[in-house]
Amino acid sequence: MKERLSLYDTTLRDGQQTQGVQFSSDEKREIAAALDALGVDYIEGGWPGANPTDSAFFDNAPKTRARMTAFGMTKRPGMSADNDDVLAAVMNAGTQSVCLVGKTHDFHVQTALGIDLEENIGLLSDSIRHLTAKGREAIFDAEHFFDGYKANPAYALRCLKAAHDAGARWIVLCDTNGGTLPHEVGHITGEVIAAGLPGDHLGIHTHNDTENAVACALAAVDAGARQIQGTLNGLGERCGNANLTALIPILLLKEPYASRFETGVTMAALAGLTRTSRMLDEILNRVPHKQAGFVGSSAFAHKAGLHASAIAKDPTTYEHIDPALVGNARVVPMSNQAGQSNLRKRLVEAGLQVDKGDPALGLILDEVKARETEGYSYDTAQASFELLARAALGRMPDLFEVKRYRVTVERRKNKYNKMVSLSEAVVVVKVDGEKRLSVSESMDETGSDRGPVNALSKALSKDLGQYSAMLEDMRLVDFKVRITQGGTEAVTRVIIDSEDGQGHRWSTVGVSANIVDASFEALLDAIRWKLIRDLKP
Amino acid sequence: MKERLSLYDTTLRDGQQTQGVQFSSDEKREIAAALDALGVDYIEGGWPGANPTDSAFFDNAPKTRARMTAFGMTKRPGMSADNDDVLAAVMNAGTQSVCLVGKTHDFHVQTALGIDLEENIGLLSDSIRHLTAKGREAIFDAEHFFDGYKANPAYALRCLKAAHDAGARWIVLCDTNGGTLPHEVGHITGEVIAAGLPGDHLGIHTHNDTENAVACALAAVDAGARQIQGTLNGLGERCGNANLTALIPILLLKEPYASRFETGVTMAALAGLTRTSRMLDEILNRVPHKQAGFVGSSAFAHKAGLHASAIAKDPTTYEHIDPALVGNARVVPMSNQAGQSNLRKRLVEAGLQVDKGDPALGLILDEVKARETEGYSYDTAQASFELLARAALGRMPDLFEVKRYRVTVERRKNKYNKMVSLSEAVVVVKVDGEKRLSVSESMDETGSDRGPVNALSKALSKDLGQYSAMLEDMRLVDFKVRITQGGTEAVTRVIIDSEDGQGHRWSTVGVSANIVDASFEALLDAIRWKLIRDLKP
Repeated sequence: MKERLSLYDTTLRDGQQTQGVQFSSDEKREIAAALDALGVDYIEGGWPGANPTDSAFFDNAPKTRARMTAFGMTKRPGMSADNDDVLAAVMNAGTQSVCLVGKTHDFHVQTALGIDLEENIGLLSDSIRHLTAKGREAIFDAEHFFDGYKANPAYALRCLKAAHDAGARWIVLCDTNGGTLPHEVGHITGEVIAAGLPGDHLGIHTHNDTENAVACALAAVDAGARQIQGTLNGLGERCGNANLTALIPILLLKEPYASRFETGVTMAALAGLTRTSRMLDEILNRVPHKQAGFVGSSAFAHKAGLHASAIAKDPTTYEHIDPALVGNARVVPMSNQAGQSNLRKRLVEAGLQVDKGDPALGLILDEVKARETEGYSYDTAQASFELLARAALGRMPDLFEVKRYRVTVERRKNKYNKMVSLSEAVVVVKVDGEKRLSVSESMDETGSDRGPVNALSKALSKDLGQYSAMLEDMRLVDFKVRITQGGTEAVTRVIIDSEDGQGHRWSTVGVSANIVDASFEALLDAIRWKLIRDLKP
Repeated sequence: MKERLSLYDTTLRDGQQTQGVQFSSDEKREIAAALDALGVDYIEGGWPGANPTDSAFFDNAPKTRARMTAFGMTKRPGMSADNDDVLAAVMNAGTQSVCLVGKTHDFHVQTALGIDLEENIGLLSDSIRHLTAKGREAIFDAEHFFDGYKANPAYALRCLKAAHDAGARWIVLCDTNGGTLPHEVGHITGEVIAAGLPGDHLGIHTHNDTENAVACALAAVDAGARQIQGTLNGLGERCGNANLTALIPILLLKEPYASRFETGVTMAALAGLTRTSRMLDEILNRVPHKQAGFVGSSAFAHKAGLHASAIAKDPTTYEHIDPALVGNARVVPMSNQAGQSNLRKRLVEAGLQVDKGDPALGLILDEVKARETEGYSYDTAQASFELLARAALGRMPDLFEVKRYRVTVERRKNKYNKMVSLSEAVVVVKVDGEKRLSVSESMDETGSDRGPVNALSKALSKDLGQYSAMLEDMRLVDFKVRITQGGTEAVTRVIIDSEDGQGHRWSTVGVSANIVDASFEALLDAIRWKLIRDLKP
């Protein structure tokens, strides 16, 4: 019989304290639905009354299987719980569970609240009793608990006991400032239980200021706590909260947790974890963190040559779990450290069957190596890699040839005496034996200048004969530039991401000391790849 | 008497396994110098012979106080250590310390190496003996040690003992796949010591696949290991290695480590940690991770209203350490009093004395805010910030005015039928009441095209009247481009680093949807800043 471990998500409350993060109430609803599908037990939706978004969210809170929880603080000094309008706003959200934060560190009671220690115990006890009297499930967030315990253990414990005696279902030990290390969290949690507070009423809330938030949460569970608070993707104040996106797979897949505990997350839901993590980044318009544990796009990327060749024999040689369990995928990038075995695999993925031992494999590796020395990088630019391989294999169709181009950027005053820029590009191509000249400028629909690369892109695709129609559903979605070393000189590397109407997304690379040339090269590759895809029988 | 803890940095070797990371040998030298200044004990420079960059680095390795270490693998089966050319390349780098990775997990010996268990012990023992016989300090990286120990503890321990008996100074327990949790690392490290391997010969090498790499390293130290391997900013294969940027401040500032251990890192060096972390991101042209522990720009940002007001009373209420200890800074909402005092400090650093309460302070803050919304960033571009402040304070001298410019990039076949590019720039300025036209092209001394920004830079400084002479000792040393969000549109942010003959180095920023415009704006600021510096009485 497994023990139940409760998962309490605070993405919508503490997660919103991340610098630069501000959810709308619709976004909160979307995230709540994803959390519910994942299987957490509690969703802390926000602080009703503290800001218009949180109030609007609770006015129309989604129906969830998880307990929707309103967050607030214990009643203020000098008034009864019934008369505290801040607490009343929290209660009025009407959630079954309510979480109130209160002080347990003597220094904070005296410095931040400015009241005496006994009064603080009275007000947290009254606040919790107020919740239970109204039939709510009461959760007490013991702010600064670990710092408080180190400063004055007897007082910190008295605060917890007061909340427990007042009927709190969960008492959550918070490492608010994030400075407590795992061994201390484990040790102090053990002492709390030894002092008579039952572990199955204790929760843990940690922050990542020392990059130990996940370990601290595990240490508390090891010591007997049975609720974990955290956020998706580790969002949160300062360095973030304990990352549920890492904790959930640990609890389900790693020992002793997997055998000992059960949570509300099923293995089927776990397989949606990577998608859920990326969805949150989409909502926040953030670039997903590549190196995130379990769900990052690099989490199962094998760059070292020795690793990549062993992986080909048996994936368990260099993978701690099967990436499919969390909905992630193995990546064997092309790089100058990769060997022939993962090259063949890459080629197969690009639809190019090549026999083992084919001398072209060696040619391709040499070409990749030589180009990487010049500053190219094929880790992400898979489409350019495919074109390079096709050329080496003699499987590159003749499409068109660029004879020359010219692009001009001009900045001067317009008739209103305002400085404005305009770029104009002329591209000359030979297609189907015919020479074609195209000219385009960089103005978008709003009359803004989008620069020389935009003008070149338009001119290049404007008149490619039979191919122009195929390029109509293609668009540039990202453009990345970095200065790198090519041989002895600094060169510019441009990576372009493109998309089409059929759901393809591909990356191409160009390198040159001239940033416009580098961009043009990546553009050309992007167009060629698209044409090859569309020409396929 | 404190115990010595050894810090072994592998940013230049395992850090290079990060997806998308490829250092040049010059960049390696720059990073090695920063690591040496920080005070690590070992710098693992790479694998000589494995790729041209690493070989070039060791051919001309920098002189460091830290021990420069070459990495390689134990000799291959079926040949003697003397006859193994891979091992010979490692030895030929001539470093005092050499680190060899070898197998300790029976499954890997049999599956990946395909040899029997006894043979593996022989070859790792021979390899270590080969190092010590040649007078080198030998370090043994026990690959997959924790997985190996769980599968076959007796065999894994025999491997360690063989390396120890052969004279290895350090035996490093590696959690190669990153799946081992802190409690297991602590427990197994304890058993290794109990089995007779001395803790002061044991190191720990962990990966962040479960987001526990820092905690695992600490657990091994708690159990008795005395060397930590890690990387700056947690670079490394898959999810990265143990992050020294977090571990170093923990070891110096947190108990029991601070009282119990000493490392080669001084408190003065610790105060340079944030700068070192950002420098690495600059080299990699990565956006620094805001939520990184200790050094992230959000690590001491107080967004919650309750936190910010308590911080104003006493910073220890919501900060686990003083941010200045690691060279970081507190971030509080710009609007309040603390925002203005920070600003005054920055102005003084730029040589601009401004009285407390001067209304210009509010104007500057508003201007910075508005520009940051457009995509500007003044974190590094101090020179552009100074120019912005000068303008707001009415302390910006009239220098020259750019009336217009035009730059053309042309690519076509030359007379040898080879595609070549050339850029040509015309800049029109008004200086000392006189209009001047200059034209330059982008060819360097070797006849290579350096692109449109180079042509613009030359044309702009070519004929600035009295100022041209002052620009003779100025040169562009770095150029960084990032696509970022400006309002609702993607824009290009260009940061230019410049240097002059007097030892100044300064950074300027330009933002536009047009990459050439953004570059020109940053160029203009660079020239203006230089002229103001040289015109100073």
